[in-house]
Amino acid sequence: MNGAQALIKTLADAGVEVCFTNPGTSEMHFVAALDTEPRMRAVLALFEGVATGAADGYARMAGKPAATLLHLGCGLGNGLANLHNARKGKVPVLNIVGDHATHHMRYDAQLQSDIETVARNVSPGFVRTSMSTAELCRDAAEALTACMGPPGSVATLILPADVSWGEGGVPQACPPLPPAPAADEARVQEIARALATSGKKTALLLGGRALQGGTLQNLSRIAQHTGARLFAEVFPTRMERGAGLPHVERIAYLAELASVQLSGLSHLILVDAKSPVSFFAYPGKESDLLPRGCQLHTLAAPHEDVAASIQRLLDATGAQATPALLQSPKRPERPQGKFTADKVCKAIGHLLPERAVLMDEAQTSGIMLPMFTAGSPRHDVLTLTGGAIGQALPCAVGAAIACPDRKVLALSGDGSAMYTLQALWTMAREKLDVVSIIFNNRSYAILNVELQRVGAVGAGEKAHGQLDIGTPALDFVQLAAGMGVPARRAMTTDEFIEALAHALATPGPHLIEAVVPPTLGGLKLRILPRLLGSLKHLPKPLAQALKRGIAP
Amino acid sequence: MNGAQALIKTLADAGVEVCFTNPGTSEMHFVAALDTEPRMRAVLALFEGVATGAADGYARMAGKPAATLLHLGCGLGNGLANLHNARKGKVPVLNIVGDHATHHMRYDAQLQSDIETVARNVSPGFVRTSMSTAELCRDAAEALTACMGPPGSVATLILPADVSWGEGGVPQACPPLPPAPAADEARVQEIARALATSGKKTALLLGGRALQGGTLQNLSRIAQHTGARLFAEVFPTRMERGAGLPHVERIAYLAELASVQLSGLSHLILVDAKSPVSFFAYPGKESDLLPRGCQLHTLAAPHEDVAASIQRLLDATGAQATPALLQSPKRPERPQGKFTADKVCKAIGHLLPERAVLMDEAQTSGIMLPMFTAGSPRHDVLTLTGGAIGQALPCAVGAAIACPDRKVLALSGDGSAMYTLQALWTMAREKLDVVSIIFNNRSYAILNVELQRVGAVGAGEKAHGQLDIGTPALDFVQLAAGMGVPARRAMTTDEFIEALAHALATPGPHLIEAVVPPTLGGLKLRILPRLLGSLKHLPKPLAQALKRGIAP
Repeated sequence: MNGAQALIKTLADAGVEVCFTNPGTSEMHFVAALDTEPRMRAVLALFEGVATGAADGYARMAGKPAATLLHLGCGLGNGLANLHNARKGKVPVLNIVGDHATHHMRYDAQLQSDIETVARNVSPGFVRTSMSTAELCRDAAEALTACMGPPGSVATLILPADVSWGEGGVPQACPPLPPAPAADEARVQEIARALATSGKKTALLLGGRALQGGTLQNLSRIAQHTGARLFAEVFPTRMERGAGLPHVERIAYLAELASVQLSGLSHLILVDAKSPVSFFAYPGKESDLLPRGCQLHTLAAPHEDVAASIQRLLDATGAQATPALLQSPKRPERPQGKFTADKVCKAIGHLLPERAVLMDEAQTSGIMLPMFTAGSPRHDVLTLTGGAIGQALPCAVGAAIACPDRKVLALSGDGSAMYTLQALWTMAREKLDVVSIIFNNRSYAILNVELQRVGAVGAGEKAHGQLDIGTPALDFVQLAAGMGVPARRAMTTDEFIEALAHALATPGPHLIEAVVPPTLGGLKLRILPRLLGSLKHLPKPLAQALKRGIAP
Repeated sequence: MNGAQALIKTLADAGVEVCFTNPGTSEMHFVAALDTEPRMRAVLALFEGVATGAADGYARMAGKPAATLLHLGCGLGNGLANLHNARKGKVPVLNIVGDHATHHMRYDAQLQSDIETVARNVSPGFVRTSMSTAELCRDAAEALTACMGPPGSVATLILPADVSWGEGGVPQACPPLPPAPAADEARVQEIARALATSGKKTALLLGGRALQGGTLQNLSRIAQHTGARLFAEVFPTRMERGAGLPHVERIAYLAELASVQLSGLSHLILVDAKSPVSFFAYPGKESDLLPRGCQLHTLAAPHEDVAASIQRLLDATGAQATPALLQSPKRPERPQGKFTADKVCKAIGHLLPERAVLMDEAQTSGIMLPMFTAGSPRHDVLTLTGGAIGQALPCAVGAAIACPDRKVLALSGDGSAMYTLQALWTMAREKLDVVSIIFNNRSYAILNVELQRVGAVGAGEKAHGQLDIGTPALDFVQLAAGMGVPARRAMTTDEFIEALAHALATPGPHLIEAVVPPTLGGLKLRILPRLLGSLKHLPKPLAQALKRGIAP
């Protein structure tokens, strides 16, 4: 058994069923070995950022890692942005990065580069070059254990070609994961006291595994019992929501609005989340969004047992018998009138099927999405955890492979979509049930807001030209067709609803290009920054939506 | 003057005229500052790999660096593969990578990552985070000096947002570059002796700046005078060739063939080149291609003055009066018959305009290109210096901006093209005179060769599926149209000739999709590896072309 064959068997034995690939010559033995292991599915991508984003989306929905297969340092570089998103989302991903044979490295051939230094950016916890076939599977088992956590992380195993092709591979069983600790009694009591004494001035900030299933129900019981509020971090890795589940208010992207949400809090309790900070820095503005004087507590850190910690707090607060507050079913009406990004969001809320996966990278165009889908049937939301755009379409690929019985909707800005549009080809190739919705507002709309928020002065024609991606206009219908995905363009609200209904009713991949003006909640983008200082000038539903993302 | 304004002035004062951009929020002050400096042109890309590849292509043709503007570690990651190609080609590129404000870094916000560690992969010689507005331009001047070399290199300047927006920027003049040393007398004499005593068993291996203009003429004089042969490295950064220039034989990509080219040599003289090594390692085969017993000499190392060193050798050999051997004009006839990749190459040789720039990333499909263009009008060839595919289209963008009066032809495999296809949009936006020719053989054809060359056994349906990119078939005509580039598909030789003639005669960008079978020099790919062991089994013109890339 050669190294590659033993490696694939080790992965399959550990439950890794999918490898997202973009191989080259140094990975050919791994590729050949795929045929020796029927449990391993190989999903080809035309670009590494698709493979890594798909591995991220897969793990978010499958609850276990996939592998990637990448070609040396350059392949890893191409996959880095979506690995960054996985790292920030604490998602387990195992990279297998092929390298030159060990005896070839000293010749500094064309593709030679320092792979480990690149890998450390996204997998600081585990980077290893496996130097012998005999030890390869032990290295792989350690890499897998490292990436599974908790917290989940990106692990990178560098596989020299001769280690892959060498004979003497020994498959290795992964050791069982050690149990994660739960919050100790003192911590639980401290938090329970804070909730008891100032419940209404207390909030629980939920991230990671705190936003799913039964865990969420227990958190709602605690909140109902104590009067505390529930917040979700601004970009959750995976959030279960919709009718029948507790509703959780997300922290706003815009720091101005997040500050309003958090103001007046005396205690903030972190549950697999970090203390809220501004996404970017702005001249003269605070980066730290924790209100002055607000006391910070940690119920469960990312390395801890989140569900057990919550259970302990439930017991300590005596909230076991308190019913959770569940969102009642409530869909928005069929949207009508002028076609805008908000109408797209409303139409999605109107039609969202049961158990859909909603990958949201709609940027400015998706601002009303949380509000319009809050009472839709139960669904999962995946978001841009690391801010590296170009995630939605690849992540949707992985989610669809993890959940072949569910509809996946991938929402993307036009600018974002163009980073990793090759994902469409994999959707077509694997016949995935993904509806990609591209908001084509022909600009980097969010940068039009940011240009003003950072106080950049003197911006003229050249500067604004850098934010305009409508010259020439991108035609996503042709781009999708070029990769084998049937597509429609919607220029009106009715056209969009019809296209969405068709896509949801017809298996396989679809793309809908929604040609909308660059607005944010119906406001022109250039007006917004001026209004942010004083929210009372905003239209009320917009202010609500911006702040809370909840059904009004 | 804020930091960004002073920085752009510093760059413009040093002769940097173009910045290839894909900015985000942390770069907004730099973007706003573009309007303060009329000498700086900003060229927007939809993906960072396009920006970095364009900066590479620009510098190859302009002979001076462009800047890139990238968004934090993820933006740099997306640009890494083409920066790798620049690094390996010793091409000067200055990266400006925006980062969070210095006071924001400790909050570990979503986009926070260790940028320096990524940057070290491609710019080991210069990575610096500029920590104050007052010192920013000094840092920039040092970065520019570092990247200009010789040898040219990639330098990365990390620009925190507050250093960019802070007041007190002081433009800085770049110090004049120190003179590079030329080969000393002892070395020149040693090499001259080798040439005098065993001229016919001696070859000069040319890379970098040795493959251009008058330098090449002097090298040909030396070769003619002494009987030595001239070789070019397998993937030259920029090679001037065609009618009226000395012809130089390129080392073959396939190690089996390169060994044939180099066999029998007693002396190999490196001129801005490195000793030849195999591109990849193969089980049981040598990585080092230098024949046993062949003595290695270095006339000019990459940090030295190449032209002056050659001049000294010219004097020492007494070859000053020997005429250079110049390629006579000789175009192939108009191709006819069955449409193959070779016919595309022949048609290009038939129609290539004077002073064209030929960016060659055609992989297996371009094997006959050097032969068919050897006697075409004088042109420049740019190649895939680092082996990181996805270079041709971005590099063509940069070459076209550097040389607005010349036609650029970008040849790409279908697989390669899909890594950075977004380059087409920048071609359309900037109305660049680029003809992109995509060889659509619907496979990673080269991997079909490599799968066998590495001796991977047991490859079955799953493995071969990883090399098949024809399911679904990519439609490059629609893909190009989706980004505003007019395109035609050629299914026959006549259709291709007509499309090429039209594209060459019509200003602005064009794309031609050549639908060809996956062959190499007319041979089916699966046959090739078996034939490589014994070249006499190959058809003679193919063996010649494979070995030498010369006109038969």
